[in-house]
Amino acid sequence: MRILLAGAGGVGSAVVPIAARRDFFDHIVVADYDRSRAEAVVARRTVPGPDGPRPDARFSAIGLDASDQDAVEAALREHACDVLFNAVDPRFDMPLFRAALNAGAHYLDMAMSLSSPHPSRPYELTGVKLGDEQFALAPEWEAGRRLALVGMGVEPGLADVFARYAADHLFRSIDEIGVRDGANLVIEGPDGEEGFAPTFSIWTTIEECLNPPVVWEDGGWHTTAPFSEPEVFDFPEGIGPVECVNVEHEEVLLVPRWVDARRVTFKYGLGEEFIGVLRTLHKLGLDSTRPVNVKGAEVAPRDVVAACLPDPATLGDRMRGKTCAGTWVRGTGKDGRPREVYLYHVVDNEWSMREYGCQAVLWQTAVHPVVALELVARGAWKGEGVLGPEAFDPVPFLDLLNEYGSPWGMREQ
Amino acid sequence: MRILLAGAGGVGSAVVPIAARRDFFDHIVVADYDRSRAEAVVARRTVPGPDGPRPDARFSAIGLDASDQDAVEAALREHACDVLFNAVDPRFDMPLFRAALNAGAHYLDMAMSLSSPHPSRPYELTGVKLGDEQFALAPEWEAGRRLALVGMGVEPGLADVFARYAADHLFRSIDEIGVRDGANLVIEGPDGEEGFAPTFSIWTTIEECLNPPVVWEDGGWHTTAPFSEPEVFDFPEGIGPVECVNVEHEEVLLVPRWVDARRVTFKYGLGEEFIGVLRTLHKLGLDSTRPVNVKGAEVAPRDVVAACLPDPATLGDRMRGKTCAGTWVRGTGKDGRPREVYLYHVVDNEWSMREYGCQAVLWQTAVHPVVALELVARGAWKGEGVLGPEAFDPVPFLDLLNEYGSPWGMREQ
Repeated sequence: MRILLAGAGGVGSAVVPIAARRDFFDHIVVADYDRSRAEAVVARRTVPGPDGPRPDARFSAIGLDASDQDAVEAALREHACDVLFNAVDPRFDMPLFRAALNAGAHYLDMAMSLSSPHPSRPYELTGVKLGDEQFALAPEWEAGRRLALVGMGVEPGLADVFARYAADHLFRSIDEIGVRDGANLVIEGPDGEEGFAPTFSIWTTIEECLNPPVVWEDGGWHTTAPFSEPEVFDFPEGIGPVECVNVEHEEVLLVPRWVDARRVTFKYGLGEEFIGVLRTLHKLGLDSTRPVNVKGAEVAPRDVVAACLPDPATLGDRMRGKTCAGTWVRGTGKDGRPREVYLYHVVDNEWSMREYGCQAVLWQTAVHPVVALELVARGAWKGEGVLGPEAFDPVPFLDLLNEYGSPWGMREQ
Repeated sequence: MRILLAGAGGVGSAVVPIAARRDFFDHIVVADYDRSRAEAVVARRTVPGPDGPRPDARFSAIGLDASDQDAVEAALREHACDVLFNAVDPRFDMPLFRAALNAGAHYLDMAMSLSSPHPSRPYELTGVKLGDEQFALAPEWEAGRRLALVGMGVEPGLADVFARYAADHLFRSIDEIGVRDGANLVIEGPDGEEGFAPTFSIWTTIEECLNPPVVWEDGGWHTTAPFSEPEVFDFPEGIGPVECVNVEHEEVLLVPRWVDARRVTFKYGLGEEFIGVLRTLHKLGLDSTRPVNVKGAEVAPRDVVAACLPDPATLGDRMRGKTCAGTWVRGTGKDGRPREVYLYHVVDNEWSMREYGCQAVLWQTAVHPVVALELVARGAWKGEGVLGPEAFDPVPFLDLLNEYGSPWGMREQ
């Protein structure tokens, strides 16, 4: 398997050291708009040689503009890649998705094509939903006999695998599947105080938090106002209770396509401070992706916000705590009695920094697509068309995740 | 008197209709970085003619970059201007100030050259203070026998005139002079809801609110943390109580140079929502004036914030309420008994829109420098060097302000 990894940002730079410990692929071409960023990620990969460490020839770096579909197609062909691994902002999903389709490559992403709200009733009805643009092209992927594995990070990704696992092995019928994400991570500022520094792409976080959250209920999707239905969820492994609110997320769109459940939700443990920041950005229009003219330069305010904050990939040294992703499921167990479980995956930042030099949130996002690609490479996961993680057998995935040294857990509620 | 008005923004565009009703000047050249903005302001000035309204020949428009000192000097000479009236952001004070000095013109501004905080103890000690760069050139202005009238808007400006009036006519000795600014203005959004829209330049508001506030006490200046010493001040004419906090402002630097007082402060009635917005902008680094690279474009985050918000000059139609600027003075009256007064000036947005087509905050800032220039033109105010408003006799100013149809008031506390 030859992989074109588009994006050497937070997640892309964590994918490389994870993949480097595995042997399922032949080559990974790391591509970034900023070629030097891709080169830096590759330069850190070495193997022992007779005269000391030498570069790991399984990795190479190129410059590539993810918004330029033709350039991506050309890169896939030039480097003879079987798979396009999309690790850039989801706004670039469609050119990458079409480039892979045209070049006859498989495709994987961790966030689906973007939504746009209902024009008149945004907080009740869906407009264009997450992934709609991608699913619209499903017949072409099927005809080309190629796999587009969408939403294959941690959330969406592992969370969807958990949902399928619960449906297959734990429940007879499911009332609600609720993805719940929380952490007790803190960032120490240069002065020792706790500073404000999102642990994941602020661009994506704004996108998912300020769009109308989507809920699956009784056979259909509807939306709510941002930050709706706050609930306190008790996270495992010492993280404890965190206030979570509804957020637009792919699981709610993916899970019901393959798993029967009366209700599917996604709630994010944002915390009060972060919600306040997002509300203010929205109030001032600083969340907007529409360019404004600033003394002759055209810039999108959201890009400026991102440029002002520290790169999440650089925060690991100053971060303490754990992050938890997981899927809470309530329904009727195989024995016919009420059952409630939380399937989860916790990463301790201290561990991910020590083991991989990556901060916890980015490492956790990066490990699952690597596991998925290994399953595809080995033939354990086979498929054609546009498929979510819950379209596949969850058992080999969960087994292989354990083999990667990062076990998952289950709590009966 | 021939005036070069640098800046056709919020205040500059309010100066023109106020000046147009007076006859103390021969010509005003309206200059702006965006020439079309200057032209639009001038185009609104007409006089009756035999064949209907014709342009008022006392006004003309040019394009001018306020950061280009040579260009400003050349414009002053080309248009034979006696006075440079600075109505742009205070970051351009120094090139304008030097251009006027070199061209032998008088100079007036409404905000003084910028401060920079003390490098190690910013919330205790002053660093470079507001106006320091300007006062450093005072000997050159004196040698050139030209007047640089600094801080001559409403606050600073009228507030300083009030301080001098209190010292000359109301008090034997003064314990504290506290400038207090508050309003009950609300902006109706396009949807009828109250929206977020600052009524004055956000660039300047961020500058004055996030810099360490300065306080004069017992013969010296010191600084505090932003938003310190909150107090509720009861504003007159129906505005009522507003929470005010310490803010860096020129009056604290100007008043003690000419008026004896044990303590001088400036407190701004920002309100809770606005303070929250400013704190968030600061937390995210969006208040910064240092350019960041945003996909190849270099932009200052604060300029982006300004570009995202509506132009304060366009808000008058959607604004309701009154704004109050004033000076509270406490000490020993001429009769030897304790006295406390608030000298104030209130502008009702409905009135300023109807009379001048200008929103209240900008009109209130614009009227006082026009009054001051009329006093200079008529010889009632004479001076050489770098002088604040409190260096002059306040009585002719306050009398002429009444003649402009915008009376001031005094409340015994």
